[in-house]
Amino acid sequence: MIAVYPGSFDPVTLGHLDIIQRAAKIADRLMVAVLKNPSKASFFSVEERLDMLREVCRHMPNVEVAAFDGLLISFAQNLGANAIIRGLRAVTDFEYEFQMALANRMLDENIETLFRSTNAQYSYLSSSVVKEIARLGGDVGIMLPKYAHTKLLQKIGKL
Amino acid sequence: MIAVYPGSFDPVTLGHLDIIQRAAKIADRLMVAVLKNPSKASFFSVEERLDMLREVCRHMPNVEVAAFDGLLISFAQNLGANAIIRGLRAVTDFEYEFQMALANRMLDENIETLFRSTNAQYSYLSSSVVKEIARLGGDVGIMLPKYAHTKLLQKIGKL
Amino acid sequence: MIAVYPGSFDPVTLGHLDIIQRAAKIADRLMVAVLKNPSKASFFSVEERLDMLREVCRHMPNVEVAAFDGLLISFAQNLGANAIIRGLRAVTDFEYEFQMALANRMLDENIETLFRSTNAQYSYLSSSVVKEIARLGGDVGIMLPKYAHTKLLQKIGKL
Amino acid sequence: MIAVYPGSFDPVTLGHLDIIQRAAKIADRLMVAVLKNPSKASFFSVEERLDMLREVCRHMPNVEVAAFDGLLISFAQNLGANAIIRGLRAVTDFEYEFQMALANRMLDENIETLFRSTNAQYSYLSSSVVKEIARLGGDVGIMLPKYAHTKLLQKIGKL
Amino acid sequence: MIAVYPGSFDPVTLGHLDIIQRAAKIADRLMVAVLKNPSKASFFSVEERLDMLREVCRHMPNVEVAAFDGLLISFAQNLGANAIIRGLRAVTDFEYEFQMALANRMLDENIETLFRSTNAQYSYLSSSVVKEIARLGGDVGIMLPKYAHTKLLQKIGKL
Amino acid sequence: MIAVYPGSFDPVTLGHLDIIQRAAKIADRLMVAVLKNPSKASFFSVEERLDMLREVCRHMPNVEVAAFDGLLISFAQNLGANAIIRGLRAVTDFEYEFQMALANRMLDENIETLFRSTNAQYSYLSSSVVKEIARLGGDVGIMLPKYAHTKLLQKIGKL
Repeated sequence: MIAVYPGSFDPVTLGHLDIIQRAAKIADRLMVAVLKNPSKASFFSVEERLDMLREVCRHMPNVEVAAFDGLLISFAQNLGANAIIRGLRAVTDFEYEFQMALANRMLDENIETLFRSTNAQYSYLSSSVVKEIARLGGDVGIMLPKYAHTKLLQKIGKL
Repeated sequence: MIAVYPGSFDPVTLGHLDIIQRAAKIADRLMVAVLKNPSKASFFSVEERLDMLREVCRHMPNVEVAAFDGLLISFAQNLGANAIIRGLRAVTDFEYEFQMALANRMLDENIETLFRSTNAQYSYLSSSVVKEIARLGGDVGIMLPKYAHTKLLQKIGKL
Repeated sequence: MIAVYPGSFDPVTLGHLDIIQRAAKIADRLMVAVLKNPSKASFFSVEERLDMLREVCRHMPNVEVAAFDGLLISFAQNLGANAIIRGLRAVTDFEYEFQMALANRMLDENIETLFRSTNAQYSYLSSSVVKEIARLGGDVGIMLPKYAHTKLLQKIGKL
Repeated sequence: MIAVYPGSFDPVTLGHLDIIQRAAKIADRLMVAVLKNPSKASFFSVEERLDMLREVCRHMPNVEVAAFDGLLISFAQNLGANAIIRGLRAVTDFEYEFQMALANRMLDENIETLFRSTNAQYSYLSSSVVKEIARLGGDVGIMLPKYAHTKLLQKIGKL
Repeated sequence: MIAVYPGSFDPVTLGHLDIIQRAAKIADRLMVAVLKNPSKASFFSVEERLDMLREVCRHMPNVEVAAFDGLLISFAQNLGANAIIRGLRAVTDFEYEFQMALANRMLDENIETLFRSTNAQYSYLSSSVVKEIARLGGDVGIMLPKYAHTKLLQKIGKL
Repeated sequence: MIAVYPGSFDPVTLGHLDIIQRAAKIADRLMVAVLKNPSKASFFSVEERLDMLREVCRHMPNVEVAAFDGLLISFAQNLGANAIIRGLRAVTDFEYEFQMALANRMLDENIETLFRSTNAQYSYLSSSVVKEIARLGGDVGIMLPKYAHTKLLQKIGKL
């Protein structure tokens, strides 16, 4: 199985990392794919997000990191992938993700979308929550990989 | 990836078959596992359910069919599996399945549970609905593989 | 529009009555249909349920009351109905009801299932809750039509 | 029953058309009503959306198409309508729609909101998904009526 | 129990007031806390929202009203509060609120978040719905405390 | 605040204990109330469940343990309680619990139902899951207080 795990990763959280580590055990090759979305402002640049992901995935030899734009399904096709990995935290995730899975299947029925439940410990953790808490002065050290935490503190001028 | 797809399959529906066919494309080896549940009355015997599954999976060389009792996670461990496949149709499925996935992860964190969204066409189809409609005299021919439909009609004495 | 509003009505609640009254305004003819389900024990007999419904629907000339068994869709076909009315209270209702609507559409695509949101005031009211509270000695007078309340009190020996 | 089916229809999808065709069978008169929302940017102009709807509804004599602004309930009152038709795809739809149905009932309790489950085949289809996929270069031909598809391709400069 | 009930209250609705009145019965001291959110445009200024809340809470001696910015948990800590009160209307509320409750617990595990179900009568009422209906010319008199209704009509120039 | 925390506690799990410990911090007095339900078979007797709860709550001076039958609201009234505490894990919990909260409020509007989100770590844990896994031979040591685990092992004959 060659799998793509797409997302914004703005920044990568411990919830994302948990999914990457587990997906790396079942996939022969795993591509972590950062969506370049010019129409949506991001906190970290695409380059910064790729850098953080490369750092936290360094110890997993079958994991690669890249950015993509355009259709996810085209990116997956070009890669020769046969699966897309997505994490599910809650019911609202579930419905949006299923809509996307169906749309992707309409576009290429040979690429499967596989969902993984987020580890309970990270079940309500998202990049948005992390940024909101950090912006208001809260400590998000237990929500992020150490490297991403350092980068976040630098970015908001606290280090 | 060696995967287990567990269920009651009482009887196997076109929704189940869709999941099996797609999972067979991404797994190296797929075990369709029929739960023997002595405390719950079934319509078809375990043997009949195994027979129907074997028939409809015959054309997929990397798919096997077996029955199990006890803990699913023990069955998966004995098989050397590293993944469990589950179909999700709706929100209520989602919550029960996540509870089970978490409990299974507590028991063995090296076995991943992967969810697949049911094909939209089969999204509200279940073995219970099929049996209920058939019992009341409705036609369930478009909900079942041909072989399972024949067996169902024989069982309720209509063929 | 000729519509069927099926249910157990064991007993009819103010939530049911609200749906009947509103459906009667948009349907040319409305059939309130009591499901005879021999495999499920009921509190009131089918005859008692029909009697209560007839009493509370007496003032609506285009509303009829009858019992049915077998497939709802066959009952609707025999009646010449082109719509089935269902009330939705909550998300779990929603999913079960959609599954049934889809199954019914598979059986006859010319009969539409229409959903109505329950009046907020009755949004968490069900026949089961009413019976449970009454059984434990609570007062359910504000949850039932007066006639059904009297019958319930007689049945549990409090009048 | 005189019914209004309101929406943005930006553009009309096969999911919308399915609802219109089925509603036209149970309503004496059906008004498909395009919301003019000056505070929200649309892809197609109101005139283009009306044109597409008129084209795809041409074969249904009891279906009319018009635009409206202001309160939906005022539009329905002016029309003499006694029902509003809405499609439900998923749980998140459900909650928003119920909030609107309740607010509308507070404003005029003589106008009923009726929900229809979307055909399973179109269950996760929305105008937003269609536009997003088309924008990224994907083929949305199987999601739209032929006429709307042609207009979309013209608009994004592919025809 | 010293409790904080945070919100935007733009404007305070009868749903909010119901929660305040009930929370005031179980808390020794209740602080209604208006979030100052400079990044989100509000209809009423913070001062106007505080004024409306003070007016409608005047008869409850253990209820205070104040504005806050920054982290809610820091505001609660400075106040010596040990509980945060939140109203839940529907499933989508539920998930967002649980995410926030978890994030707050990560920041200070001695402050509990307690949820109350909204009174059924107000179950689908929100400040956004009220403003939308008022903007389109609808009557929202039954959704707001009298004082807030007067202020809203003044603001939109109808009084 | 005098609060009641009702449940079956068959047996008490670490999820229940987490709720008791946190509720004990905000309530002046907390009554953990075991429901005697003669119509539902339990694994542990009421006496065994009371014994386990007393043991695990021993260190909390403001926590009491008792059994009750009949209406929860009558039990709370006799106790002079003004709040009922309930844990929420997931959406299906949420809907059932809200229905009960509303029914209880209809019976006595002076007793508030307060919900707490389960600690993420225990979010999918229930007495049923624990018993099911134990029955099938799995290890549930990390899901239960030590004392309850010992009692469970004794009961199923493994100690």
